[in-house]
Amino acid sequence: MPLPLPTIEAVRWSDDERGVRVLDQRFLPVAEVYHDLSTVRQVCDAIATLAVRGAPAIGIAGAMGLTLALGDAEIDGDAPLARLEAAAAQIRSTRPTAVNLAWALERVLGVAKATSEGELARALHDEATRILEEDRAMCRRLGELGADLIADGARVLTHCNTGALATGGIGTALAAIYVAAEQGKRVSVYADETRPLLQGSRLTAWELERAGIPVTVLVDGAAAALMHAGRVDACLVGADRIAANGDVANKIGTYGLAIIAKAHDVPFYVVAPTSTFDSATACGEHIVIEERGGDEVRRGFGAATAPDDVSVFNPAFDVTPAELITAIVSDRQIHRPPYAFGRGLA
Amino acid sequence: MPLPLPTIEAVRWSDDERGVRVLDQRFLPVAEVYHDLSTVRQVCDAIATLAVRGAPAIGIAGAMGLTLALGDAEIDGDAPLARLEAAAAQIRSTRPTAVNLAWALERVLGVAKATSEGELARALHDEATRILEEDRAMCRRLGELGADLIADGARVLTHCNTGALATGGIGTALAAIYVAAEQGKRVSVYADETRPLLQGSRLTAWELERAGIPVTVLVDGAAAALMHAGRVDACLVGADRIAANGDVANKIGTYGLAIIAKAHDVPFYVVAPTSTFDSATACGEHIVIEERGGDEVRRGFGAATAPDDVSVFNPAFDVTPAELITAIVSDRQIHRPPYAFGRGLA
Repeated sequence: MPLPLPTIEAVRWSDDERGVRVLDQRFLPVAEVYHDLSTVRQVCDAIATLAVRGAPAIGIAGAMGLTLALGDAEIDGDAPLARLEAAAAQIRSTRPTAVNLAWALERVLGVAKATSEGELARALHDEATRILEEDRAMCRRLGELGADLIADGARVLTHCNTGALATGGIGTALAAIYVAAEQGKRVSVYADETRPLLQGSRLTAWELERAGIPVTVLVDGAAAALMHAGRVDACLVGADRIAANGDVANKIGTYGLAIIAKAHDVPFYVVAPTSTFDSATACGEHIVIEERGGDEVRRGFGAATAPDDVSVFNPAFDVTPAELITAIVSDRQIHRPPYAFGRGLA
Repeated sequence: MPLPLPTIEAVRWSDDERGVRVLDQRFLPVAEVYHDLSTVRQVCDAIATLAVRGAPAIGIAGAMGLTLALGDAEIDGDAPLARLEAAAAQIRSTRPTAVNLAWALERVLGVAKATSEGELARALHDEATRILEEDRAMCRRLGELGADLIADGARVLTHCNTGALATGGIGTALAAIYVAAEQGKRVSVYADETRPLLQGSRLTAWELERAGIPVTVLVDGAAAALMHAGRVDACLVGADRIAANGDVANKIGTYGLAIIAKAHDVPFYVVAPTSTFDSATACGEHIVIEERGGDEVRRGFGAATAPDDVSVFNPAFDVTPAELITAIVSDRQIHRPPYAFGRGLA
């Protein structure tokens, strides 16, 4: 039976269009809490604390947030362009790994540079709106292309959250699952819980359940046993940055999962919009990996889950080399190895 | 600088020798809580809830607990042997995967069958004490053999807890680290946190810090990135059951870790006492894997970390095939492939 697509809005304009409304993902799956953000600092905090997360969604939130700089008393400078550049630097520094954030800020700054002061507010608002709307359309196209990789009855393993909560639309890797279900395919999902922040068990499980798609949660360490048991037909993940050679930075744990998938001959697919491709970065070695605070591991759930002062290794992302990736789905096409992404995903 | 060995006692007789004293590991690292268990049911609960855990430690607790059956009003039957067999069945059923528990119970039952009724209480107490003392001595031998695999300056990655908390002595895989440190080698440890129950971050980190050994905690999904960065010289893990062909059942996540170690040419060692070897089981396929409740994943930290009703895949163990294991350290010798363990680890 075909299933309707999800209607979750992770990030959009607030009702009066003067702020940015985000669904605070830190409270999921327990509560659905929305915030209307009205300053650049609030937007930075929302991105840095992962209230809003997912590479495409933080790009959108960043672009919308940048428009707030014009009327934000906390931003230094008189000239509008100087104020926008100062705000963009603040926003960009919140998360270094996902390329979408820098990309979206550059788009808005580019419009600012080409627009007269009287038109500026309207033009920036329109550009941020276009980024949101393009993302929605890209999610839909990713879903349609990605759904071709999903057979009727497929059991798909995924990592982190790549759904409506991570984008302006229906997601990236999960979009493929949503569109497959919309087409009437029976598809079920295994969701790695994705430590430390549990985007899989908290977010992916929540949105798939809402959408009526069967989902089973497992700890990250159980994926190998599941594949050995022959219970996974494909892995689908998203990306935070894709280098020109096809190396993929994504949530910590993705690289190990790709090694394990290869060992079991399970196809490993990456699904990501154009804004995730970074042709200026030759390969994964050059991608800056964000290291996050140790308390995400030591006290991740309000409980003391490790000695207070213990040393922690907590990179937010890892890099999966291109040779472990069966195909990369962009919103243009399904790319097969060898990968060589120039401008325009050539 | 040589470091002293740890003196933690995970399981021993209570001070009056009429009960079993266990360190309740569910409260670590926050509090050190001990219980004196005086009935078979209490011992079963302690094992089933993982208050006491670790294959050797539950063998010892099971053997000591079985001796309580003679005076336990809750156990049915008049004849002592019938009571012991009923109690052994109860205790055995608490954890099906670790072979040490069944092995220890059989030893105590064997003594019971060979002993007259008047001597029974003393003989059972002595046999359980022997199992504890032999385990202590085995830990020491495991540590001495295993330390030969650890070079000065080695950075060792481990999974779950295989230390003093898991045994009657100084541990299995961690014993090798403790003895290496006692020999004056500089050794540092990376501890997988080991979801769902966090034996790595809660227990391994706690006991290594106490022993003065540098330890860094990471989420299970970060091990691949750590190895890719060249920061791991060897993996050392324990075992819950080792089949005749060298396949190893151990904490969930071990199998994936072994695949990842192989992909990075990092040696992967298993350290386990004689009681863990099960020559009657030909290979890993025949090992029964315990599945535990979904709330360990859904609500593992007292917080709702997944939707309340979501389906969960939660095997406590997985099986690492022999071909991924560089060497297996028993208390007799370091075994290299091809493995063929008959009676007496031939």
